[in-house]
Amino acid sequence: MSDKNTIPSLTTGALTGSSKIYTTPDSDHDLRVPFRDIKTSDPQESSVRIYDASGPYTDDTHTIDINKGLPRYREAWIKERSVEQYQGRNLRPEDNGQAKGSYLADAFSHEYQPYRGTGEQPLTQYEMARAGIISKEMIYVAERENLGRKKALDNAQEILDDGESFGASLPQFVTPEFVRSEIAQGRAIIPANINHPELEPMIIGRNFLVKINANIGNSAIASTVEEEIDKMVWATRWGADTVMDLSTGKNIHHTREWIIRNSPVPIGTVPMYQALEKVGGVAEDLTWEVFRDTLIEQCEQGVDYFTIHAGVRLAYIHLTVDRVTGIVSRGGSIMAKWCLHHHKESFLYEHFEDICDIMRQYDVSFSLGDGLRPGSNADGNDRAQFAELETLGELTRVAWSKGCQVIIEGPGHVPMHKIKVNMEKQLRECGEAPFYTLGPLTTDIAPGYDHITSAIGAAMIGWYGTAMLCYVTPKEHLGLPNRDDVKTGVITYKIAAQAADLAKGHPAAQIRDNALSKARFDFRWEDQFNLSLDPDTARSFHDETLPKEAHKVAHFCSMCGPKFCSMKISREVKDYANKLNDKTQGMAQMSHKYKEMGSQLYLDTELTKEVVKEPAE
Amino acid sequence: MSDKNTIPSLTTGALTGSSKIYTTPDSDHDLRVPFRDIKTSDPQESSVRIYDASGPYTDDTHTIDINKGLPRYREAWIKERSVEQYQGRNLRPEDNGQAKGSYLADAFSHEYQPYRGTGEQPLTQYEMARAGIISKEMIYVAERENLGRKKALDNAQEILDDGESFGASLPQFVTPEFVRSEIAQGRAIIPANINHPELEPMIIGRNFLVKINANIGNSAIASTVEEEIDKMVWATRWGADTVMDLSTGKNIHHTREWIIRNSPVPIGTVPMYQALEKVGGVAEDLTWEVFRDTLIEQCEQGVDYFTIHAGVRLAYIHLTVDRVTGIVSRGGSIMAKWCLHHHKESFLYEHFEDICDIMRQYDVSFSLGDGLRPGSNADGNDRAQFAELETLGELTRVAWSKGCQVIIEGPGHVPMHKIKVNMEKQLRECGEAPFYTLGPLTTDIAPGYDHITSAIGAAMIGWYGTAMLCYVTPKEHLGLPNRDDVKTGVITYKIAAQAADLAKGHPAAQIRDNALSKARFDFRWEDQFNLSLDPDTARSFHDETLPKEAHKVAHFCSMCGPKFCSMKISREVKDYANKLNDKTQGMAQMSHKYKEMGSQLYLDTELTKEVVKEPAE
Repeated sequence: MSDKNTIPSLTTGALTGSSKIYTTPDSDHDLRVPFRDIKTSDPQESSVRIYDASGPYTDDTHTIDINKGLPRYREAWIKERSVEQYQGRNLRPEDNGQAKGSYLADAFSHEYQPYRGTGEQPLTQYEMARAGIISKEMIYVAERENLGRKKALDNAQEILDDGESFGASLPQFVTPEFVRSEIAQGRAIIPANINHPELEPMIIGRNFLVKINANIGNSAIASTVEEEIDKMVWATRWGADTVMDLSTGKNIHHTREWIIRNSPVPIGTVPMYQALEKVGGVAEDLTWEVFRDTLIEQCEQGVDYFTIHAGVRLAYIHLTVDRVTGIVSRGGSIMAKWCLHHHKESFLYEHFEDICDIMRQYDVSFSLGDGLRPGSNADGNDRAQFAELETLGELTRVAWSKGCQVIIEGPGHVPMHKIKVNMEKQLRECGEAPFYTLGPLTTDIAPGYDHITSAIGAAMIGWYGTAMLCYVTPKEHLGLPNRDDVKTGVITYKIAAQAADLAKGHPAAQIRDNALSKARFDFRWEDQFNLSLDPDTARSFHDETLPKEAHKVAHFCSMCGPKFCSMKISREVKDYANKLNDKTQGMAQMSHKYKEMGSQLYLDTELTKEVVKEPAE
Repeated sequence: MSDKNTIPSLTTGALTGSSKIYTTPDSDHDLRVPFRDIKTSDPQESSVRIYDASGPYTDDTHTIDINKGLPRYREAWIKERSVEQYQGRNLRPEDNGQAKGSYLADAFSHEYQPYRGTGEQPLTQYEMARAGIISKEMIYVAERENLGRKKALDNAQEILDDGESFGASLPQFVTPEFVRSEIAQGRAIIPANINHPELEPMIIGRNFLVKINANIGNSAIASTVEEEIDKMVWATRWGADTVMDLSTGKNIHHTREWIIRNSPVPIGTVPMYQALEKVGGVAEDLTWEVFRDTLIEQCEQGVDYFTIHAGVRLAYIHLTVDRVTGIVSRGGSIMAKWCLHHHKESFLYEHFEDICDIMRQYDVSFSLGDGLRPGSNADGNDRAQFAELETLGELTRVAWSKGCQVIIEGPGHVPMHKIKVNMEKQLRECGEAPFYTLGPLTTDIAPGYDHITSAIGAAMIGWYGTAMLCYVTPKEHLGLPNRDDVKTGVITYKIAAQAADLAKGHPAAQIRDNALSKARFDFRWEDQFNLSLDPDTARSFHDETLPKEAHKVAHFCSMCGPKFCSMKISREVKDYANKLNDKTQGMAQMSHKYKEMGSQLYLDTELTKEVVKEPAE
């Protein structure tokens, strides 16, 4: 990267209180599967293992050089499949929006020849799964998903088996065969383009941990390549499981190349955005040829999943006319305009099998876009939305018949009482293909806080069965998210995903919740911070009122002060009761012993005196 | 107030884009009921009426003087009832935690003689309602709740009648008689101590708008009287319907007096906190006499509702011993300690009828506290929690028989799949007395973001039927909330309440949601900001990337830029379709006309060119 694209100051290194560890699955000793390990001071639970999407950026032993990109370790696996390396499509000026001179971002430092499948043997994860083949990716994700499950098996009485999963079936232990079987049934995907060998495989499906996606990408108005790489690294640091690059400005090709070469998570795009740039932004000038060319360009670069709005059919457009907010999907509105102008069926729908044939060669997964999703609560669950969903079901079956992996995108604005029917209809229409929803936002009156309006809906639909939640940032409807917004969006959606996993009865979710709750009750402040989704914020909030190191062992916080700390009093009650575990003793005797023990309410320490600041009258 | 307690710089005046209006109910021309009125530039909907909890502080025609307190206009109503004014209890040094000299805050500038009921005629709203009397407070809240309902009746086709209210029955139009009937059945309360005549009456009940409470109050560690008055005004500015003063430090009496005299919303307290201060913080030294004295002190001051943890019975304490987080309610843990120490039944439970007799004289409402609420998801819905809830049901009936108004406090930490049963059990056990819940928090792993973990649960339980949601701020579990935290907590809970009202099918909720959505689709940026819960934040987020005044009329924002704005494209599609409303024309003709119209994708204006910043190559 030259000085005109200066290397951003990426935030790297382990999260506070965490370290990167790797484990090796029993069934494949070549694999190293990453986790975050949080050491605690609890003698019963010395460390807690956390799912880790952040890649080598949080591995203190790994030297990051974004000019080189991440290690391409998965290339060796891919070479063993029926693939060929070939001279890819040449870069064209329109790929970067005709940017020239100082407006053109540098190309990535290396050019890799792309791979594609020869068609001789199964190539996509779906094809392999159907053929009974357990891929390395499947072994990898099985190991990765087993967070806490081993412990749950060992220590069954600690885990409540009372979740409500609405027909999902979370296994006691995830095996590679379970992964294969879920993929073969279309109930899960591993988005992993064979030209993105830097990726750490992950799985999206209702019977796995709920995942979250973070959108990044520049627009014509704001942002640069550097900022977007930084956002990708930053988003995955806080837990984004996939990242969509929704860039729409110039330098769209080069931006994407930098992102993919440096991304440990699957990258999704909406190829329509780039195709529209190639025809100068005039929707009606779009053609199948331009779109096809864009697909191949992005397949060769290594994009892992494509949003394709093939369900926006000519016949559905009139259904949106009386809506409060019309069509709010960018891809959907572009296709609507194209269809109206030409009075033709959508070329995405007409060429859907051709699209499948291209995507299958690279194992790019479909994310069937909901171009007619409601943009306001008033439009939620209307006929336009559901007509499209029915078409997406039809297209899912076509894609499967062509060997492709598929997920389905879901609605943006839906009031709470209409959320569940979305999930039920999606499962029914789309044969249980994974659902991937934006929010949904449960009210429209809080621009500036739409991460929250949508987290409510996201937690609920995640519980009902959505496999991946697309984050919403505080800037939604108002502007392009900056770094802080990206973090807020990711943390908020990690909350929604965890709440969903917990409600579904996922053992790993319970273990982490309980670990933090125990630390709280034990006044292990450092453990509380380290076990939280955002240790830095938790610590800084605590330190606003009690900054000293000594306070980190205090048996109270500034909310109640030492006198009123219920946790402290409650611990005294518990300790007392525990010491009296002779069941033959009556409560009167217990009361007597309690008094003998001093029944102190105050911690009579120097620390307490100092903090309470008794006035010197 | 002397210079030692300087007058805080309160934020007053109307919210951006709003003005204060008053309406007069048909059935009582003496009443002036406040609303916020938001003018819009939509010719079809020139203004939107918003529920307004902020009192005279947002009335530009009213001069605020916190040394005088708010106007005591309700005193005239109360004098007409069977009340007597009497020499109240004398202030004692322990009322302010023995604070002396420069540590003692100033008393409020006026001393008012308290009122109490003589018992000759019905006094509490419950007694009046049972006796068939429609009080001025009932007329006032009926008018106040009728937001948008008139319009809904006039314009029925705009309002969807498809909410799911789980047995709640939202009326088409709220009449004073409906209010009376709900109160008489114990399904709603108007918390309004006869010694808080400054208060603007409001109602809490499942068949009314969902309300929110904001907790404020100092602790031994942090905060001053001034900060707490400021937080009260600030919290109500953003929409807090009631405020709880949970102060636990010194100056507890004087702090409360300043707050009540200046509060337009009901003030709640936990009298146990002050009682404990009076006995030097030693729980086992608490007595019924000290508690009774504290109740009378606070009744005379004008506290509108008391949290009383009378459901923490001796026999339930052992149920908490094996919990992950024991007892986390402060009041609950204090009573648990008292019960264990003395090996006696709780004096709150034993003296419950005496407590009723005191509270009835002033019409202080019960908020029956959930002292054994779960403090972690692992403890949600356990036997300790539900045993206490059953006792609260028993006490509800006692309080009603004594003429008192009652609401029931609900759990703090409950995973999503266990929320609904809480609501159902509460309705059943407590005879449909209103539920008042803290959150609930749906996961424990996000300290620093517990406004969000809890807003998820709050929205859901609000939908299921909770009448009032107690807010949680980002500082929960970590420290005392500051001004920013209070605002974030309030806005977050207004979101939860609105999402709940929307899902229940409340017409006013739909009208506001739709007004903002239409403004969004019409690119009326100023209307969008003004109609939002937090106009200032919405505007500032927008202006981060598009600061100019001219951009406020732009048909795009920086998220997508002008080329990709789906709303813009969609409007074009809609406009086009609307012009072709001759149903006999085929789609081919429509396509032809669309082309004739220019089918422009771009706004070819100077503004667009300027913003897009085409590079000069």
